[in-house]
Amino acid sequence: MKKALIIGSTGFGGLGLIDILGRHPELEISQLIAIDHGKKISELYPHLEGRCDLLVESPDNIRYDEADIAFFATPDRVGMEIIGEFHRRNIPVIDFSGDFRFDNEEDYRVYAENKGMNSQHMCPELLKESVFGLPEKNRDEIKKSNIIGNPGCFAMSMICGLLPAVENSIIYDSPVICDGKTGVSGAGINPGQANSYPLRYDNVNAYREGHHQHLVEVEKTLNRYKSDSNLDYRILFIPQIVPINRGIITTMYAKLKENISQSKINEIYSTFYCDSPFIKVTDKSPQTASARGTNKCIIKAMADERTGYLFITSVIDNLMKGQSGNAVQNANIRLGFEETLGLDMTTFYP
Amino acid sequence: MKKALIIGSTGFGGLGLIDILGRHPELEISQLIAIDHGKKISELYPHLEGRCDLLVESPDNIRYDEADIAFFATPDRVGMEIIGEFHRRNIPVIDFSGDFRFDNEEDYRVYAENKGMNSQHMCPELLKESVFGLPEKNRDEIKKSNIIGNPGCFAMSMICGLLPAVENSIIYDSPVICDGKTGVSGAGINPGQANSYPLRYDNVNAYREGHHQHLVEVEKTLNRYKSDSNLDYRILFIPQIVPINRGIITTMYAKLKENISQSKINEIYSTFYCDSPFIKVTDKSPQTASARGTNKCIIKAMADERTGYLFITSVIDNLMKGQSGNAVQNANIRLGFEETLGLDMTTFYP
Amino acid sequence: MKKALIIGSTGFGGLGLIDILGRHPELEISQLIAIDHGKKISELYPHLEGRCDLLVESPDNIRYDEADIAFFATPDRVGMEIIGEFHRRNIPVIDFSGDFRFDNEEDYRVYAENKGMNSQHMCPELLKESVFGLPEKNRDEIKKSNIIGNPGCFAMSMICGLLPAVENSIIYDSPVICDGKTGVSGAGINPGQANSYPLRYDNVNAYREGHHQHLVEVEKTLNRYKSDSNLDYRILFIPQIVPINRGIITTMYAKLKENISQSKINEIYSTFYCDSPFIKVTDKSPQTASARGTNKCIIKAMADERTGYLFITSVIDNLMKGQSGNAVQNANIRLGFEETLGLDMTTFYP
Amino acid sequence: MKKALIIGSTGFGGLGLIDILGRHPELEISQLIAIDHGKKISELYPHLEGRCDLLVESPDNIRYDEADIAFFATPDRVGMEIIGEFHRRNIPVIDFSGDFRFDNEEDYRVYAENKGMNSQHMCPELLKESVFGLPEKNRDEIKKSNIIGNPGCFAMSMICGLLPAVENSIIYDSPVICDGKTGVSGAGINPGQANSYPLRYDNVNAYREGHHQHLVEVEKTLNRYKSDSNLDYRILFIPQIVPINRGIITTMYAKLKENISQSKINEIYSTFYCDSPFIKVTDKSPQTASARGTNKCIIKAMADERTGYLFITSVIDNLMKGQSGNAVQNANIRLGFEETLGLDMTTFYP
Repeated sequence: MKKALIIGSTGFGGLGLIDILGRHPELEISQLIAIDHGKKISELYPHLEGRCDLLVESPDNIRYDEADIAFFATPDRVGMEIIGEFHRRNIPVIDFSGDFRFDNEEDYRVYAENKGMNSQHMCPELLKESVFGLPEKNRDEIKKSNIIGNPGCFAMSMICGLLPAVENSIIYDSPVICDGKTGVSGAGINPGQANSYPLRYDNVNAYREGHHQHLVEVEKTLNRYKSDSNLDYRILFIPQIVPINRGIITTMYAKLKENISQSKINEIYSTFYCDSPFIKVTDKSPQTASARGTNKCIIKAMADERTGYLFITSVIDNLMKGQSGNAVQNANIRLGFEETLGLDMTTFYP
Repeated sequence: MKKALIIGSTGFGGLGLIDILGRHPELEISQLIAIDHGKKISELYPHLEGRCDLLVESPDNIRYDEADIAFFATPDRVGMEIIGEFHRRNIPVIDFSGDFRFDNEEDYRVYAENKGMNSQHMCPELLKESVFGLPEKNRDEIKKSNIIGNPGCFAMSMICGLLPAVENSIIYDSPVICDGKTGVSGAGINPGQANSYPLRYDNVNAYREGHHQHLVEVEKTLNRYKSDSNLDYRILFIPQIVPINRGIITTMYAKLKENISQSKINEIYSTFYCDSPFIKVTDKSPQTASARGTNKCIIKAMADERTGYLFITSVIDNLMKGQSGNAVQNANIRLGFEETLGLDMTTFYP
Repeated sequence: MKKALIIGSTGFGGLGLIDILGRHPELEISQLIAIDHGKKISELYPHLEGRCDLLVESPDNIRYDEADIAFFATPDRVGMEIIGEFHRRNIPVIDFSGDFRFDNEEDYRVYAENKGMNSQHMCPELLKESVFGLPEKNRDEIKKSNIIGNPGCFAMSMICGLLPAVENSIIYDSPVICDGKTGVSGAGINPGQANSYPLRYDNVNAYREGHHQHLVEVEKTLNRYKSDSNLDYRILFIPQIVPINRGIITTMYAKLKENISQSKINEIYSTFYCDSPFIKVTDKSPQTASARGTNKCIIKAMADERTGYLFITSVIDNLMKGQSGNAVQNANIRLGFEETLGLDMTTFYP
Repeated sequence: MKKALIIGSTGFGGLGLIDILGRHPELEISQLIAIDHGKKISELYPHLEGRCDLLVESPDNIRYDEADIAFFATPDRVGMEIIGEFHRRNIPVIDFSGDFRFDNEEDYRVYAENKGMNSQHMCPELLKESVFGLPEKNRDEIKKSNIIGNPGCFAMSMICGLLPAVENSIIYDSPVICDGKTGVSGAGINPGQANSYPLRYDNVNAYREGHHQHLVEVEKTLNRYKSDSNLDYRILFIPQIVPINRGIITTMYAKLKENISQSKINEIYSTFYCDSPFIKVTDKSPQTASARGTNKCIIKAMADERTGYLFITSVIDNLMKGQSGNAVQNANIRLGFEETLGLDMTTFYP
């Protein structure tokens, strides 16, 4: 049994990890760390009573020796402050924020500026050692890296939806339009306007139109894996908040290079994901509820003959494939486990 | 005081009319008609007690003499069965369905086929006499017509968002992408999967992708009013259902013909709607809750410099500007009233 | 046209007043005051653009001369700090908090202790001059008082439901059980656990069982108006939060003194409220949606023959009859207007 | 591996069983039966793709030989038509409806009349052989019976909350007041007013006040297990619908016989349930979300000193401990398995 340390254990990311690791056959929690430490996690979250009654401890009391791997379920710019120590000790780390999604300072800078925060990376030398935690493409790199940057939730939904079309070079870069809708849990547990019940209830709005920080990792990933080097994929991405708790549905639109049959599209997508246990390619209209509580990404790709466009819908649970679920998938790969260990959840339905 | 007959008075369209006409200074209800007749409307809807206690009567007992105008808040293919009699009697009619949104049989046929129903119009000779009930463009025609086809809710959100750009010829037709999100009340009052609480709750899905019936009236309207005759606007429209009660938010994407400043775009939109009391052009990200309970359409148009695209968000209350509110606006115009009579609601917030 | 000052104008109480006064024929806003001052109210709440674009000003800049009446839509212990100055200037004041719901320090102390806050009143000499703002009983006192303590939302639902039975002495005091369910807007606009979307969503819980602060004003009011002086009414009150935005439904249970027919109960309730325009006595099961957006209180009282208990359901919109609506009703009475002015809203349905 | 037949497999009860049996180590599905047969279950519910792709078959094609046990996840009066055949073949049956919750025709009659349906039982001779499927009390009977009537969801929440107090004779029968709040999934999957999104949304209402059909099984159970034979427990039960998907919270009120300390109450409840793995006695205010997705019943019992009343809150997931979860618990007992097999779910949170 390997042991995992969870830093940032009292937010939704931490709760997701506690739930998954509670049923993982090969990985268990060594220690819970958070700024709001001092109580048992089950005092803060009574539903955990009898499931996980560990004390939440201070970042000052990290027991490095016990950890085979560490999850940083922390906001931006927390991981970069202390990941160095883990790196020195050769403890692999999976970071949930944008701190280690890029291999260079410039990309980080754009990411951080889009989010409106300090854009100076604190340990740029570690960026080169990090890998983008997209198991569907980077399994081999993830296996060998000690710093894995877990993708953003919206980015995950876009990349999974677009990669097969980009790698098979069936769409133009003119640009790709991504219309994303996220549930409120995406705003995290700290109370604010974005997750206020009376303000979010019966309400939908767009925000940060064209400038959401996940743009960077999507464009970078598409262009890294594109097969047509003449293209330079650009994303016009509009995020919206809808009053659901969990779930992201992103609809994507791109001009098809040439006429292509629906069956050929299906074949491209199915082939691309034939070894990816969590990606479900379908020809039914996906709904977010079908992924709820699971690590699935459900994708429908469809040619619209009237306009010559490819239309793709991608659905995930933002707290699972968009966060903790994908993180454990990365951990499984890094630790040499079967990729699906601990992640065999059934859809929570209805 | 003029008098209005409401046919189909027990659905959401009827309820909306009852509410609006209850505060209208110049128009009052003469009679409520519905298939499920026999009780007072306030027995069916206790919140109306003391507000409207009229009997719901059978379609066999329509009192034509009392009506200065008739609202058909009825499903597709109901109005076309009985509007003829109103037409003979010169009673102006506003129909909520797709029955009279087109001036020719062919457009109706495409509309009906997209919706998967009988596509043979029953009184094609009346189509030529009908007018598309879009007050923002057709005021003069509406004033003179006795058959007004109230636009579809999604169509309203798209047309209001796109018309300024199309008339001013700042966007290409390559195609225009429309990503629509509607509240559940759009599925009407009759219970089914589309408005089942356990199935809709915490759920978003796309449906009828690329083939929604409102496509026809949008493309037709855009091409009717375009200034560049070389263009043939096509819409790729993806409707989605989100778990809100009322509200539509449609995000639209079109390639800009040339570089155009944000201030120029603002000017085009503001000028276009300077005489339209219900259209609010804004530079803040619109939210559906800002239109809730009102006849407003709130529009933000924005140039995305990274991609050269125009991005438009349009927000309405689907039961108001998308249905009953717009119908009363049409009635006001037809009867020679001030366009805003009875429609001066405040936003229901929070 | 009289003028009203709103202190605490940026919370839900303030928004409610802005909405109501915007359609009031005899009362308009003179000034908006709040701690978070400096912007136009319509910048904070875009749905108000064109409706109310007043600047939110600092408490330091109150223009006393302009105000015929002042609303304190402020939290506990704010009003008691500055109401003195209004009192000296003979400006009538309606306070939304518990600061002036009691005529003595001891009741305030119990109230404040139940809420877990400082229980020392800051101007006890003003308590004697205050009146409990329950229009259904205190019209005459309200007319003459310059300090009106607007009842708590839960208290309003309980008092309206129980008073007819208590005044007519048909129930025992053994005790009265009150099971209250409130919408999330009751927790106000400041973000916290109580109004966090992910925590409130799909969730119901009880809180402060048996010790909610509204107990005091309910027991005091019942015992003030009881006709059987041998009884000492006690309330066992359990508040719960349900995931609706607006609305309170309280179910109440009390032992009937003797067998009493349902028709007699109906008569008692109807007679009691025959002059109260906002109270609707019904024999249908009330639903919170029937009161949504209105100043109504809907009451069903029913004898349960199997147990000899009286069972009462009472429904209000917590932001209207439970807050701003009732406050304007009090203002109307105090200023000599018709009680219903500005409060003729229709139910927001669906 | 034993095999279970599911009749009524396409409703929420069936979906719950499919989910639980999909992770059960000793029990698997032999066949799915439903009236709406002919498709694979995963065509009706795409989230089941790859999890359960069994064909839904006609009631005419039941393969009795394959079934070690049968679940009737069917509405009232379906089981009584065909359970006879299972009984003849000695196949144990767990029925989800009220058909076999009573051991005599008279109780069934009252139950059925409260529900407003035909009250003539069709196989009264089988009633004597049936057992009420309350594992917390009836384990030994359940082990030996071939007809197990799974309790109603509201009844489960009430009985679990009240039994310790009744068996230990600490409360009077004067009467017991039960205020129940259920999520919308309790109305089942068939669309109607009770589960219409626009009508249920932002709405709470009471219904069938004092006459809900679950009354009968609660009163019968309490009086069967009471220790004070002078008491005759009566329930005044008011059910309400709240806009959550899953979950029941019932608040219960009963007069304490004598002063009793809170610690004594805690001891009584903890002792009573010390061998019941799914009952959690707590001193924190329970929330429905803490039981979501699990077979837990969470109970808080509290003395209110001001009134001398015992106040109990009980929380379950209506589709789990209130339906399918409890049914599998019964099946485990009947088949000689560990009671918790297949039921070790974690709370779905947030």
